[in-house]
Amino acid sequence: MKAAVLGCTGYTGMILLRILGSHPDIKSIIPVSSSKAGKSVLSTDPGLGADLDKSGLAGKTALTRGCCVSLDQAVRFEPDVVFSALPHLESAKLCTPFFGKSVVIDLSADLRIRNPAAFQKSYGHDAPRPDLLPSVVYGLCELYREDIKGSDIIANPGCYPTATILPLAPLAQRSMLKGTIIINALSGISGAGKKAETMLLYGERTENTCAYSPGKSHRHTGEITQEIVKRDASLNVLFIPHLVPLKRGMAVTTTVHVQPGIDETAVEEALEETYRDAPFVHLLKSRLPETRDVWGSNRCDIAWYQEGDILMLFSVIDNLVKGASGQAVQNMNIRFGIEETRGLRVHGEL
Amino acid sequence: MKAAVLGCTGYTGMILLRILGSHPDIKSIIPVSSSKAGKSVLSTDPGLGADLDKSGLAGKTALTRGCCVSLDQAVRFEPDVVFSALPHLESAKLCTPFFGKSVVIDLSADLRIRNPAAFQKSYGHDAPRPDLLPSVVYGLCELYREDIKGSDIIANPGCYPTATILPLAPLAQRSMLKGTIIINALSGISGAGKKAETMLLYGERTENTCAYSPGKSHRHTGEITQEIVKRDASLNVLFIPHLVPLKRGMAVTTTVHVQPGIDETAVEEALEETYRDAPFVHLLKSRLPETRDVWGSNRCDIAWYQEGDILMLFSVIDNLVKGASGQAVQNMNIRFGIEETRGLRVHGEL
Amino acid sequence: MKAAVLGCTGYTGMILLRILGSHPDIKSIIPVSSSKAGKSVLSTDPGLGADLDKSGLAGKTALTRGCCVSLDQAVRFEPDVVFSALPHLESAKLCTPFFGKSVVIDLSADLRIRNPAAFQKSYGHDAPRPDLLPSVVYGLCELYREDIKGSDIIANPGCYPTATILPLAPLAQRSMLKGTIIINALSGISGAGKKAETMLLYGERTENTCAYSPGKSHRHTGEITQEIVKRDASLNVLFIPHLVPLKRGMAVTTTVHVQPGIDETAVEEALEETYRDAPFVHLLKSRLPETRDVWGSNRCDIAWYQEGDILMLFSVIDNLVKGASGQAVQNMNIRFGIEETRGLRVHGEL
Amino acid sequence: MKAAVLGCTGYTGMILLRILGSHPDIKSIIPVSSSKAGKSVLSTDPGLGADLDKSGLAGKTALTRGCCVSLDQAVRFEPDVVFSALPHLESAKLCTPFFGKSVVIDLSADLRIRNPAAFQKSYGHDAPRPDLLPSVVYGLCELYREDIKGSDIIANPGCYPTATILPLAPLAQRSMLKGTIIINALSGISGAGKKAETMLLYGERTENTCAYSPGKSHRHTGEITQEIVKRDASLNVLFIPHLVPLKRGMAVTTTVHVQPGIDETAVEEALEETYRDAPFVHLLKSRLPETRDVWGSNRCDIAWYQEGDILMLFSVIDNLVKGASGQAVQNMNIRFGIEETRGLRVHGEL
Repeated sequence: MKAAVLGCTGYTGMILLRILGSHPDIKSIIPVSSSKAGKSVLSTDPGLGADLDKSGLAGKTALTRGCCVSLDQAVRFEPDVVFSALPHLESAKLCTPFFGKSVVIDLSADLRIRNPAAFQKSYGHDAPRPDLLPSVVYGLCELYREDIKGSDIIANPGCYPTATILPLAPLAQRSMLKGTIIINALSGISGAGKKAETMLLYGERTENTCAYSPGKSHRHTGEITQEIVKRDASLNVLFIPHLVPLKRGMAVTTTVHVQPGIDETAVEEALEETYRDAPFVHLLKSRLPETRDVWGSNRCDIAWYQEGDILMLFSVIDNLVKGASGQAVQNMNIRFGIEETRGLRVHGEL
Repeated sequence: MKAAVLGCTGYTGMILLRILGSHPDIKSIIPVSSSKAGKSVLSTDPGLGADLDKSGLAGKTALTRGCCVSLDQAVRFEPDVVFSALPHLESAKLCTPFFGKSVVIDLSADLRIRNPAAFQKSYGHDAPRPDLLPSVVYGLCELYREDIKGSDIIANPGCYPTATILPLAPLAQRSMLKGTIIINALSGISGAGKKAETMLLYGERTENTCAYSPGKSHRHTGEITQEIVKRDASLNVLFIPHLVPLKRGMAVTTTVHVQPGIDETAVEEALEETYRDAPFVHLLKSRLPETRDVWGSNRCDIAWYQEGDILMLFSVIDNLVKGASGQAVQNMNIRFGIEETRGLRVHGEL
Repeated sequence: MKAAVLGCTGYTGMILLRILGSHPDIKSIIPVSSSKAGKSVLSTDPGLGADLDKSGLAGKTALTRGCCVSLDQAVRFEPDVVFSALPHLESAKLCTPFFGKSVVIDLSADLRIRNPAAFQKSYGHDAPRPDLLPSVVYGLCELYREDIKGSDIIANPGCYPTATILPLAPLAQRSMLKGTIIINALSGISGAGKKAETMLLYGERTENTCAYSPGKSHRHTGEITQEIVKRDASLNVLFIPHLVPLKRGMAVTTTVHVQPGIDETAVEEALEETYRDAPFVHLLKSRLPETRDVWGSNRCDIAWYQEGDILMLFSVIDNLVKGASGQAVQNMNIRFGIEETRGLRVHGEL
Repeated sequence: MKAAVLGCTGYTGMILLRILGSHPDIKSIIPVSSSKAGKSVLSTDPGLGADLDKSGLAGKTALTRGCCVSLDQAVRFEPDVVFSALPHLESAKLCTPFFGKSVVIDLSADLRIRNPAAFQKSYGHDAPRPDLLPSVVYGLCELYREDIKGSDIIANPGCYPTATILPLAPLAQRSMLKGTIIINALSGISGAGKKAETMLLYGERTENTCAYSPGKSHRHTGEITQEIVKRDASLNVLFIPHLVPLKRGMAVTTTVHVQPGIDETAVEEALEETYRDAPFVHLLKSRLPETRDVWGSNRCDIAWYQEGDILMLFSVIDNLVKGASGQAVQNMNIRFGIEETRGLRVHGEL
């Protein structure tokens, strides 16, 4: 299989190169970067190594001789699968030459929102390709596994939505919740990408934490709401993101009232039933999850705890793996009939 | 004025030495440590400097010749004010020789809870000195300023309660809120003290974040509830603390339903009215607070934002300053008729 | 006294606002920023507080009504002292209107190098104002105290040179060293300023350390060499800087061969003799210095240890205080006959 | 193959579980911990996952039913290879039952020093098993590959020695160096292990850096000296370690005079010749190495730069991988004729 990675020099692109580089079913990687075309991937990403042969990438990048290529060149290599790690409002447009020819897994937000008006509201721009939406599957693997198998365009979910929706969806689906869901989410700094902005400097973010863009002002509110409300239209969502000084990691604490009769056991049953066979969703029964436990892995660890009629849900992911590139490869595995865990880690780094 | 600092080698004791060391009204500091009695304060706390004269402490610690002393010795120096930075369940007991002679400002939880049964529930032990409670004032300076002026025993509030109650109290007082208050609080690691525990190691806490002890299982729930419910008995509290990799800093995000007719303007008016003359409470009108802004200062920065009938309150403090030692000195200033800001910083470190 | 701060929105400018804000001899502060002229200092630097009165700056910034002003406006206020926290190659030029009228303390490198050819070599540009050099004093306070008293232009030293030269100068002066001095210096990230560059992002610098620009390729090599060689022309300097994930802090480890007969006692005597009365230089006799001990203070802690004929010198500073803004205020204090420690901290933050 | 991991709950033990857990040639893992015997490995190390089947370890730990076992139990499982991640002065003793039966890879210092007197000097105790030393190979893979193939006892090198010796050995071997080698090494905090000590707390190590135990007082000086002096007896070693606030990572900057005629090209040739076929040693020709680039990988990246007759060598490793557990598995691969890179990563984490 040949895989192209559009935007290979950003954080999610770099993680994709690592995962695909050791994925046994990927024979060729086509690293794509408009700004770095012609440059060796080892120079744009020294973590890969300083020697193409020793890096293990010489064979896999033989098509491009170890270098980044332009989008035009990438098209000519006819990849089987295209991962787009490009910014939203650019991604869907730049993927145009691949639609209909390659399976496209779009890590941007361009194709995640099914309602163009909702997209407009969240992103302040027209939905980029509303014509494609009927063919797009929302790639939250554990919830749409069957749909993913048959789709050629997969909208890879955002990191906040992934960590938030996984614990909530089975409960919303079963009408176990009521009222407004309060989501307090803590994100590592890499979630903001590798952009040279003052507010992302080391000196600004270390020894610092804050909430930002609460409620409707954060773009992920629309994505989360879409997936909750389609399961239970009576629910509302209030999303409050925070930045914490982690390189990688995301912890979400959700509080919501439960319907009468719902207790921790009912919650456990719903989650168990949904995720029994999901290799990357782990249910914790006697402790709360920590982001460190899933660092570098494609796992989502979930715990729950009820006090009175308020349920607390705790979920953690690595924002760059299950929240982005890992889930993208999981989508590829599912789509191409490869074992779901192939090339992905269950163990967190220490 | 002579000030004794019981437990001068822990984080809050160390901060007290710094603040008192440059406080113009403190002529003598008596550093007390049972384990380090006889040792130079410069050896137990090298941040103070390597030369007693140059450190500026030679004069202020002349009574003890620059050394830590035992509790017994401290009693003989007849301090005007005693700061106890000892652990809860030890503090009130060890302060016994000072009650009735010195003003005692207890930074532990021993005297904060007015209802002994509630103390028992939170701390799993009998309240240490229920006999003293009628004479104790809860030292949340901005809310109990007048009481503090006349009290000889001041229970300095916890860090979580300080950051949580300041934005809530004026609103609860005015019956503007309803239902269960959801408090998501993020604390820097120094909040856990300077204890040699595996879970506090650098390797365990860096690149890691998690919720812990949610709801009734955290000891500060009782303290927060006490102060909220006395203002509006119809309210409930759900407290969910988190650890984030900061050395110092605390950010609290509170969500609560408002009573009909309450909007952001009403909230602003209540907060303005309460804190207009409070030098350390700053109300932000166009941005959310960041912990870095108050690092090292005695400030509490507060912002608010309403969506539908849910109010969000954002507050930040330095857990070791306004959340502990700074507020203790603010209490001393108020009690002794000294200008409230004396010796305390308004500006955060960079 | 009226003080202008040119470049008040960068890290060193922000620290200057804090120090001058609580300095008893400064009656007026004129914050200068070409890009933020007209904006409130509380909006460009929220750490100062959210209320001008409560911030304590209302009085001190009454001239500019709490706002940043342009350079032209600043000139009209006729400051007694001007601190320039502007970038090198801009600073001396933009200070032109103040020379001859105000005491100028230049925190940039523009006026540090006495030999224009050496400046050209280090900075790749002509020395900006070689005509001024005869009137300029190199403001390493402990070594040039008497010269500073009589000078109207003070070139404030770099952070690396400050931490490196303080332990070495007394030994070079006494011809106690020989050969090439090897300087391994570790700097916190704020040393690179508040520039929106990819390599300074949180995601690039946390969990990362590296050497950079070793030897002659680093600009501070020239400045260090100038001060060492003028004391002992037989010595050479090899400077190797490193970035470590600290917000603030600098640790320098220097190794050098000693002349026959020189031992730790001789080193101690030379350092004691030089720094006996220096309030900010602390000599450690039984432990090695840690950057945390001087965080936020204007101290330089020094230790030494000899093995065979190789002397090791260990020195730490806060790069933004003794390495920049604190030393600038120390220079002002000396120049204006104010007590040297006024407004500056000896105690490190915790 | 069956592999036992003694001391599976410390940092190096935990990394071993991860590497062996995905190593294709390891069929059984026997996790050994005296203090945690009987406890599930998922409870002692939650990073492995919360479900034994999903963790991928159910099969590999079937022998112990997913639990840690005691040393006695481990002996009965007759492992092919034993990794000892026990503390020095305990390790060799507790490995006794395995010598002669299993291949023992000792990650402690117990068997690294060939001269018992030198061990005594460095560790203050008698060498634990001097009788075994003739059968022990020093497991610095790139330098002793052939010896490792035939040995049943492998002393896995320390982290500081690994990063230091790799760049130096080829140059010492060729008599290219002279005088005293100055080694300034920066280590992440995990290098000190997972011990509940105050000086390793988050609050003590974040925003802090310092040198410690310089020269002969650090135990690794003896190990480094042994390997340098056996290649060129005219050389001396001065080793100066530093702690920097990294979780994982080590950067070593070495300075040394070269013999006449030696230049950067000669150095490059010697390194190229030695490491041409070493998959984990990467030579950088146009940039300096950063610890982040090798985070999580078994690589050692090396750069060199000469100024006058002083050579600078820059090397980085992940102290827990190439500096400990990764190299231990590399040793196992070599010893058992498995491909050297099997189960080990070349790519650093982002």
